[in-house]
Amino acid sequence: MKVTVSRIAHFNAAHKLYRSDWSDKKNEDFFGKCANANFHGHNYELIVSVTGDVDPETGYVMDLKKLKDLIKLEVEERFDHKNLNMDVIEFKKLMPSAENIAVVIYNILKKKIDQDLDLEITLYETPRNFVKYTGP
Amino acid sequence: MKVTVSRIAHFNAAHKLYRSDWSDKKNEDFFGKCANANFHGHNYELIVSVTGDVDPETGYVMDLKKLKDLIKLEVEERFDHKNLNMDVIEFKKLMPSAENIAVVIYNILKKKIDQDLDLEITLYETPRNFVKYTGP
Amino acid sequence: MKVTVSRIAHFNAAHKLYRSDWSDKKNEDFFGKCANANFHGHNYELIVSVTGDVDPETGYVMDLKKLKDLIKLEVEERFDHKNLNMDVIEFKKLMPSAENIAVVIYNILKKKIDQDLDLEITLYETPRNFVKYTGP
Amino acid sequence: MKVTVSRIAHFNAAHKLYRSDWSDKKNEDFFGKCANANFHGHNYELIVSVTGDVDPETGYVMDLKKLKDLIKLEVEERFDHKNLNMDVIEFKKLMPSAENIAVVIYNILKKKIDQDLDLEITLYETPRNFVKYTGP
Amino acid sequence: MKVTVSRIAHFNAAHKLYRSDWSDKKNEDFFGKCANANFHGHNYELIVSVTGDVDPETGYVMDLKKLKDLIKLEVEERFDHKNLNMDVIEFKKLMPSAENIAVVIYNILKKKIDQDLDLEITLYETPRNFVKYTGP
Amino acid sequence: MKVTVSRIAHFNAAHKLYRSDWSDKKNEDFFGKCANANFHGHNYELIVSVTGDVDPETGYVMDLKKLKDLIKLEVEERFDHKNLNMDVIEFKKLMPSAENIAVVIYNILKKKIDQDLDLEITLYETPRNFVKYTGP
Repeated sequence: MKVTVSRIAHFNAAHKLYRSDWSDKKNEDFFGKCANANFHGHNYELIVSVTGDVDPETGYVMDLKKLKDLIKLEVEERFDHKNLNMDVIEFKKLMPSAENIAVVIYNILKKKIDQDLDLEITLYETPRNFVKYTGP
Repeated sequence: MKVTVSRIAHFNAAHKLYRSDWSDKKNEDFFGKCANANFHGHNYELIVSVTGDVDPETGYVMDLKKLKDLIKLEVEERFDHKNLNMDVIEFKKLMPSAENIAVVIYNILKKKIDQDLDLEITLYETPRNFVKYTGP
Repeated sequence: MKVTVSRIAHFNAAHKLYRSDWSDKKNEDFFGKCANANFHGHNYELIVSVTGDVDPETGYVMDLKKLKDLIKLEVEERFDHKNLNMDVIEFKKLMPSAENIAVVIYNILKKKIDQDLDLEITLYETPRNFVKYTGP
Repeated sequence: MKVTVSRIAHFNAAHKLYRSDWSDKKNEDFFGKCANANFHGHNYELIVSVTGDVDPETGYVMDLKKLKDLIKLEVEERFDHKNLNMDVIEFKKLMPSAENIAVVIYNILKKKIDQDLDLEITLYETPRNFVKYTGP
Repeated sequence: MKVTVSRIAHFNAAHKLYRSDWSDKKNEDFFGKCANANFHGHNYELIVSVTGDVDPETGYVMDLKKLKDLIKLEVEERFDHKNLNMDVIEFKKLMPSAENIAVVIYNILKKKIDQDLDLEITLYETPRNFVKYTGP
Repeated sequence: MKVTVSRIAHFNAAHKLYRSDWSDKKNEDFFGKCANANFHGHNYELIVSVTGDVDPETGYVMDLKKLKDLIKLEVEERFDHKNLNMDVIEFKKLMPSAENIAVVIYNILKKKIDQDLDLEITLYETPRNFVKYTGP
């Protein structure tokens, strides 16, 4: 009897979409306003979903309090009120697009939860744009 | 041509997460604030999703008015403004965790809809915690 | 490494659910208030989701700005502030139920995006009723 | 000790903004897409707010169940799934702009509640456009 | 130059609306489902709004981090995951209606903030019912 | 017959709260994570509310399409996908706190609308923090 449990969290960060091996013009042509040299930012909304069997004794798939604490430690502490391009090591060489942020968060959290559990990451960059990653 | 149609409903209920065969301390250690002896409560938001073929004559998978009435009769009438532990027979011996509530609602509604239709239950316990169950 | 990217858009339209080969009474019995002769209307919320590989150079599955422009051109320009039954050619003979509107939008957009990408259409007719279509 | 209590309700309706004493061109120039001859529509979200003294015995300013029933009877029954221009008598000669709809609802409800209570009407025409009227 | 700053918080609690000096029938007639003997519950959403001058050096009316901590200490710690009737001293003899909860929170917080600041409390009991109190 | 009409808009920007005449330590002690040297960012949600008489001929207080275009030209074009501290002239010497951003937007828009109309600016910095300014 598999159930999916989800926890929503938030972090606020600056970023820009910009390749240093491209000209400024090529960056602006491709990434538009997202290439603004001095960065812009977002309130990211993160949904972490974990699927597994319900424990018959506790009624839990996973203690959502522990999932909340894990997200706080592994994601919020490192991403919240940061500049993703400059302050977060994973994006030193990786474009901090919503797609890549979701994949990075997936890879961080996958190692920290029971390997029998399936993981899915949904990330809203704005209330109108969001991405989902369910693993390789 | 299969389409999924969904209807959102609400019920407000008290509950606690507590095993009478555990000590108070063990309950509090495991369930935290959710074990509060005198109960706490939630505005549960329920999404009932039904998947099936679109009727070419009516454009409907299932009349959402009938689904609304079914949810009202089978779920809201029995769960809304109730104490899940004390007033709802399914939770006399079953932990009223969000996971188990979703499974119970699935089992109630599955019997009442056309057996060709697939059913999925999503239940928000708070705006930040939710669960999903798609059947055994 | 497949990721799903989604863009939310809106259109406001009038419609009615009514078959001219049925009596008024049969229409009202089946479609209820939705059969009101002079139409009613909705703020439709549309979620267009596209799944594909992340481009390692840009971090994009698909440029969401292009998806936004595509939705504007192909859906909003044709559906927004329109009467679906009277002004939109696809519904001259097809019931403009939420199910059928989602299928029509899927068919319009599928031809306009890279055929390697998967497409999913979610359409909210009201904040409490929504449908999803992922293709044939 | 004055407290304001509010109840949210919904109705879905078709309308157009069009003056029959103006040319089609003038209507389109002024009202834009809202003048579409065959109507368009909205999910209107209505917030009815009532301000008054808290009854020390019951803790109520006004029974919100009664306010809900009053809105249902006086507003939803008459406006929901209707064409405001054609089906609602108040708009036979009055432009069904959000502003005027709010004033009409205010005038309808003001007569039906205790005259010691202050009334405020907030009406969302879309999630991005809304109006508020607090009386003359 | 007065600006209002607001912080949103949440608490989940059980309650019932019931007067012990009334008969069960009178309680049920007046309070309806809210009088359910074994309680029901809500996810309360609380908006605390503070109005005052903007400090020209910091750009703040009041540090929202401090307001967040104050709400956590004075409201959440005492109300969250509690039974309002049984666990919260202010409601031992006072009906825990949304109106009274708002007034109690106002009285708690008013003493703890700078007396030059105006305070307003908005409390959502459900997504469709809310109250506002701005002081005596 | 005065009615308030409101239009919601959005802009995404980077900023930091930091005084160059304070030490790093004092900035961090006072502004906390908001002082992060490399900036962070937000999806700002802006509500512009205009109060005035309803035109009996059109049913409008002000054409919301014109208000939308005005917000786009005067606020979004200048603030969206920008670094408020570095790219927006008003914040070269003024702390870009939510309070000050609201006041700056008020001052920009007040000059551009009919002086008989009252103006109110509401600005959400996050879904949990927002400010309101109604003028001097």
